[in-house]
Amino acid sequence: MDLTRYIARKRDGLRLEDEDWSAIIPAIAEGRVAEVQIGAWLMAIYMRGLDTQERAAYTREMIGTGTTLDWSAYEGPVADKHSTGGVGDKVSLIWAPLVAAAGAAVPMISGRGLGHTGGTLDKLEAIPGYTVALDPARIAAVVDDAGCVICGQTETMVPADRILYDRRNLTGTVATVDHIAPSIMSKKLSEGLDRLVLDVKVGRGAFMKTLDDARQLAQVMVELGSAVGCHTSALLSTMDRALGRWVGHGAEVHEALELLEGRGPADTRQLVLALAGQVVPDADLEALLAGGEPRERFARMIHGQGGRLEDFRWPLEARSHEVCAPEEGLIIEQDALTVGHALADLGGARTDQEPDLDVAVELLLKPGDTVGRGEPWARLWHRGGRGLERAEARLAGALRVAAEGDGSPAPLILERVKETG
Amino acid sequence: MDLTRYIARKRDGLRLEDEDWSAIIPAIAEGRVAEVQIGAWLMAIYMRGLDTQERAAYTREMIGTGTTLDWSAYEGPVADKHSTGGVGDKVSLIWAPLVAAAGAAVPMISGRGLGHTGGTLDKLEAIPGYTVALDPARIAAVVDDAGCVICGQTETMVPADRILYDRRNLTGTVATVDHIAPSIMSKKLSEGLDRLVLDVKVGRGAFMKTLDDARQLAQVMVELGSAVGCHTSALLSTMDRALGRWVGHGAEVHEALELLEGRGPADTRQLVLALAGQVVPDADLEALLAGGEPRERFARMIHGQGGRLEDFRWPLEARSHEVCAPEEGLIIEQDALTVGHALADLGGARTDQEPDLDVAVELLLKPGDTVGRGEPWARLWHRGGRGLERAEARLAGALRVAAEGDGSPAPLILERVKETG
Repeated sequence: MDLTRYIARKRDGLRLEDEDWSAIIPAIAEGRVAEVQIGAWLMAIYMRGLDTQERAAYTREMIGTGTTLDWSAYEGPVADKHSTGGVGDKVSLIWAPLVAAAGAAVPMISGRGLGHTGGTLDKLEAIPGYTVALDPARIAAVVDDAGCVICGQTETMVPADRILYDRRNLTGTVATVDHIAPSIMSKKLSEGLDRLVLDVKVGRGAFMKTLDDARQLAQVMVELGSAVGCHTSALLSTMDRALGRWVGHGAEVHEALELLEGRGPADTRQLVLALAGQVVPDADLEALLAGGEPRERFARMIHGQGGRLEDFRWPLEARSHEVCAPEEGLIIEQDALTVGHALADLGGARTDQEPDLDVAVELLLKPGDTVGRGEPWARLWHRGGRGLERAEARLAGALRVAAEGDGSPAPLILERVKETG
Repeated sequence: MDLTRYIARKRDGLRLEDEDWSAIIPAIAEGRVAEVQIGAWLMAIYMRGLDTQERAAYTREMIGTGTTLDWSAYEGPVADKHSTGGVGDKVSLIWAPLVAAAGAAVPMISGRGLGHTGGTLDKLEAIPGYTVALDPARIAAVVDDAGCVICGQTETMVPADRILYDRRNLTGTVATVDHIAPSIMSKKLSEGLDRLVLDVKVGRGAFMKTLDDARQLAQVMVELGSAVGCHTSALLSTMDRALGRWVGHGAEVHEALELLEGRGPADTRQLVLALAGQVVPDADLEALLAGGEPRERFARMIHGQGGRLEDFRWPLEARSHEVCAPEEGLIIEQDALTVGHALADLGGARTDQEPDLDVAVELLLKPGDTVGRGEPWARLWHRGGRGLERAEARLAGALRVAAEGDGSPAPLILERVKETG
């Protein structure tokens, strides 16, 4: 198909109508558009932007290029969460079985790590036998048993998005809500979802560096959710600092299990509860967590996906090394981006190779804590010293301490964005 | 090569430096860039624009991807003309031998028809035996003998431009001086040129619809010429009306021969002389034209390119039909675009098939002339009635007459743009 006239409309700042999207997106999915035209079209949208109706049509047409999961026989809500990606973000692992325990079905299609942020699927692969590739029948069976599933996209879901995702990366057209929101929403709605909460990370360790950008993405997503019939809300949460005590694949599964057992760090717990409250507002989530049902559902989910939770150990082989503070004071900053890069130094990031699931950065102290001079504030869990020196040197730049009263860390949850009307 | 960072720079409104162009353009010429990236890059430039230094680097790198003609052994100036394309524009056919007679070498690489405007090469093919495909040695030999040549691009000239030309069409990124000027100038400089005059057509029958757009293209071209070492000037000439008496391939060769023989319409003659004066300002062009040398050079050029001018007849078979004015008055408008489309109705345009070189629209009267009610103002030279009814109906909308004093046609030459400093 010749895309020229659609490119020209968007180039000139005109709207693409519903019927235009019906022509464009299937043609892209079916490989009927010249690559050079896809590139120009992506850039014209990046430059000129889309309105809510265009984003909704874009989303609907993307969904229409693939298969969707069907929960029509299921009575309760079908809910999911999407995080824009952060350092130490293991929220999904607790959130999914908790929301399932509150009566929702959670068919969570998740992703791999990107850059300095770990991926939920990579983390779960630290559990022996766990598999991410499920067919729709298996997905339904796991949800039927555990109430939740966390797996990868199936072959037939949203092919248009998979094509465009790669090309957005190649053409420098990723960083716009006009492509991001339809991309996220088309994947989520292909899960057959009716409720979605978005965790939009803000700060140096996040994709969105400023509150304004994060708020814009949240607002666009919430608006788009309404337009395509999925109740959507968003929390903006800080990613100036890493989430929780542990950053690293196996380590984060370990932290998730602690939280499912009523222990674990306060910040991760706070965020899990807040994000769960957005989709199941009437449930007593604290009581559910304390009652142990989410832990049981997590175990059933892992078992349903071939995982042997009983064989999960953390750490298996990695050795630890302490990182000490050069001066005393109140910890104001503990830069998340640097922590993410330190994990990458140790081999724990998905770069050109598979991540080492067994290395980690442990944050012994967090912003808001007081540290003494020479006191350990982090621990590096390394494999035979690989990348250790570099990671330690890097972490020295992550910490900022202040005299008491000279500053305070940002709150964990910054804002809430809800549907209007 | 991965173009992402160059796309991102231009997307964000930053400059591409000389070394960036040295990386980008050869990679495109050698097929080392993903098509989707070429599309996004073309659109980012369309949207953000280029400055003079960027356009100069773009031009130089395009030239560098191919071979250039070499006139270093030649003592006089090497000159050419470029028209942005108009209806009835046969200027090149007279201009080239006239400028050659004034002492310049004219290695004119010309093109085919595009849309409603005829191409110089198509027109010359109305001369039996004439061939446009010459190798560099033959080009040199024809110039050596006649002082001028009018032929097509060789296989090895500006391959980057040929690649980008197609892709600009596919991606809706044609209509910007930032792509047009380097495209024109790289082709012209590959001819080994040191003087260039640009005939920028303005009006409904032209690519540039407004004086502002035309002036901008002219200024950019003149500036770019200076930056890459080619003395460049431009005339802005009206394309509200067609040029000359004849519109059609063979018919325009016929009109060119008339002009070379000291006859023919005043407007075409005026434009030829003005455009020639831009590159050979010291020559007595009127005297040269009257002396017959340009006519002889034209004949030698045609002969050198295999053409048998002695066998050229016009018209061969076409039959004529008069178009009459519905009311009397002063002719104010005679829309060039409509005239171009009427020629296409008769089969005389390069569309999805080769143009019929033998059909024509003859303009018996021109803007500024007075027409009587029912008086013929145009004649359609058709092939067996093909498209005649449609062309006649169309032409009815081309004419606007006024009572004496109610308006006057625009001047032929609107402005002159010269190098500063």
